[in-house]
Amino acid sequence: MKRIAILGSTGSIGTQALDVIEANPESFELEVITANNNAELLITQALKFKPNAVVIANEAYYEQVREALQQEDIKIYAGANALCAVVEMGTVDMVLTAMMGYAGLQPTIRAIKAGKQIALANKETLVVAGQLITELAKEYGVNIYPVDSEHSAIFQCLVGEFHNPIEKIILTASGGPFRGRTVDELILVTKAQALKHPNWDMGAKITIDSASLMNKGLEVIEAKWLFGLTNEQIEVVVHPQSIIHSLVQFEDGSLKAQLGLPDMKLPIQYALGYPNRLKSDFPRFNFMDYPQLTFEQPDLKTFRNLQLAFDAMAKGGNMPCILNAANEIAVSAFLRDEVGFLQMPEIIESCMAKVTYIANPSYDDYVLTDSETRAKASELIHKIQSKV
Amino acid sequence: MKRIAILGSTGSIGTQALDVIEANPESFELEVITANNNAELLITQALKFKPNAVVIANEAYYEQVREALQQEDIKIYAGANALCAVVEMGTVDMVLTAMMGYAGLQPTIRAIKAGKQIALANKETLVVAGQLITELAKEYGVNIYPVDSEHSAIFQCLVGEFHNPIEKIILTASGGPFRGRTVDELILVTKAQALKHPNWDMGAKITIDSASLMNKGLEVIEAKWLFGLTNEQIEVVVHPQSIIHSLVQFEDGSLKAQLGLPDMKLPIQYALGYPNRLKSDFPRFNFMDYPQLTFEQPDLKTFRNLQLAFDAMAKGGNMPCILNAANEIAVSAFLRDEVGFLQMPEIIESCMAKVTYIANPSYDDYVLTDSETRAKASELIHKIQSKV
Repeated sequence: MKRIAILGSTGSIGTQALDVIEANPESFELEVITANNNAELLITQALKFKPNAVVIANEAYYEQVREALQQEDIKIYAGANALCAVVEMGTVDMVLTAMMGYAGLQPTIRAIKAGKQIALANKETLVVAGQLITELAKEYGVNIYPVDSEHSAIFQCLVGEFHNPIEKIILTASGGPFRGRTVDELILVTKAQALKHPNWDMGAKITIDSASLMNKGLEVIEAKWLFGLTNEQIEVVVHPQSIIHSLVQFEDGSLKAQLGLPDMKLPIQYALGYPNRLKSDFPRFNFMDYPQLTFEQPDLKTFRNLQLAFDAMAKGGNMPCILNAANEIAVSAFLRDEVGFLQMPEIIESCMAKVTYIANPSYDDYVLTDSETRAKASELIHKIQSKV
Repeated sequence: MKRIAILGSTGSIGTQALDVIEANPESFELEVITANNNAELLITQALKFKPNAVVIANEAYYEQVREALQQEDIKIYAGANALCAVVEMGTVDMVLTAMMGYAGLQPTIRAIKAGKQIALANKETLVVAGQLITELAKEYGVNIYPVDSEHSAIFQCLVGEFHNPIEKIILTASGGPFRGRTVDELILVTKAQALKHPNWDMGAKITIDSASLMNKGLEVIEAKWLFGLTNEQIEVVVHPQSIIHSLVQFEDGSLKAQLGLPDMKLPIQYALGYPNRLKSDFPRFNFMDYPQLTFEQPDLKTFRNLQLAFDAMAKGGNMPCILNAANEIAVSAFLRDEVGFLQMPEIIESCMAKVTYIANPSYDDYVLTDSETRAKASELIHKIQSKV
């Protein structure tokens, strides 16, 4: 029986993780759930699963949650600090970090320092502070199980092979809804178009990142840290059907891949249940429904975000942190219709050029870099808007 | 340092295994090589690799081999019994069974009883006597490492997952040179056409078996025993590019696959080197050379051998032994231009109907079944010829 804390239980990954836990009561016990603002769903989840504790990060909703759950034997906390405290609870074995963006960094560090196993769905944590996190995990003997489908695929391929060096990995990318489009065609794409992902049903931020290929860029950096790779060992191949979730090539030349229908429940369940594969009723893949699997090079000139991510990774230091913060601000602005699709890479590139570069950042440097970048990106967005 | 005996060193698998051993002198030592009739190549190999012992199975060549190697410190044996004796030598750690057809059964049994690890390239051994062999391997604590690329693929996918039940496996098949042809088109195909395999460069017998899909049928039965599967857990999918070498589906619905260019050296090296993947300079796979991987159902009505193999597996007992012996005789006759391509399944089906069925055969029963079937198949071929 594994006792689970879910940070971000009301998001796309969080709700699917709850489905997995519900379907496997003999394997999992839900200890903690947390949400940022969605108090209503958090309450519904708490009433259903009766966890030991709930956290509502936005303190404005504390009273609402407290009242709704007052009949229950559930501890109720509010605020970002509470988020960090609950991951340290003695009754928690594994923390699923499923909150959005940069906010995942601090609680993840606290969970690692408390010796909790990590199911990592918050890729920004490794993008921003990959070196710090992986060193900490090593120091505290903590395993990080990836939840992203691509990294889960690679991890699944590495099981039983940890003694065999990786030659390279190939991350597959669907190419998103705008695959094959030219720069001219991308200038005027709308938020609604960008939010229509061909294969995956995900949250808004990650869906925009998928359309711009930034999601793949963040995954490249995440993979570097998760699997201890050099920049040259990571390739991206566009695979529009999203069936082969990623591949590993070993030093003998052999490639291993993990495949399946696009369904986040599988990697979530794998990370929670590792090393055991729990019997599931997830829909099965059938080659007769996919008689052709196709592959192409990513178009780094049109989808510049992916190239920027490779550049940030090559530069190292706090550059991926700058990339990530600038992207978070740019995507928010795009979702508010304040900037165009192709202005996102412009904002990011500009931040990468202008924010103070630090080659060997400490945790505090990351915090400062993040806020400096957000300020710079917001300033750029204001300029863009004032021109319109 | 693993000390290797290669049974069948002059064949396609044997010579490639020697290349692997030559390329990895820090990992392997060649202890024994054996050949059936190719004394000349056996001598060349012995002079180059200086093994501890050589065996020429056909005693007529003994003098030739002895004379050629008389200056060397190499033990020289002749005859089928010597084949069985050398696998028991104390200096042998692993036996690669790379001889052709039914002849591999007895030495494999002797090697298992002597506690040697088995790299199995002789699929007929498991087809004929899968139950006997797998029970013996269990009894003597011997691992069987498959060399067939499909079974190696599955084995590679199972590494680290032996505690997780298999839901099913999918064996991929190239479809051979006659994929997509109709029965009418197959009546007149020639030996030369059948010997042109689109992807794999192999011996004549296995190339014909690939063209007729009997090779896949034998692999289905081999897989049943290697991986302890029920008949319903084995699927065949035609994949003309031969890049995905096979797949495993686990109970959580996740599929794992092993991929690579068609090159037997990789599975040979993997079986010899397990659990280590030795660095190789084998050509690497690149998706840009294979932008489309395609999949289709096998045509069991046109390529009846595959259906016959499924039928033999379902019937069990000595039926796969009958299938295999009838096929060996039919393929020899086809290679001598004595029967047509579509007469091979007729001969096999007829043998399956007429040779005495034994539900729980002993080793002696297999021997008798094999000779009874060969006699019956030869008789059928004579009848076919006398009609011409």
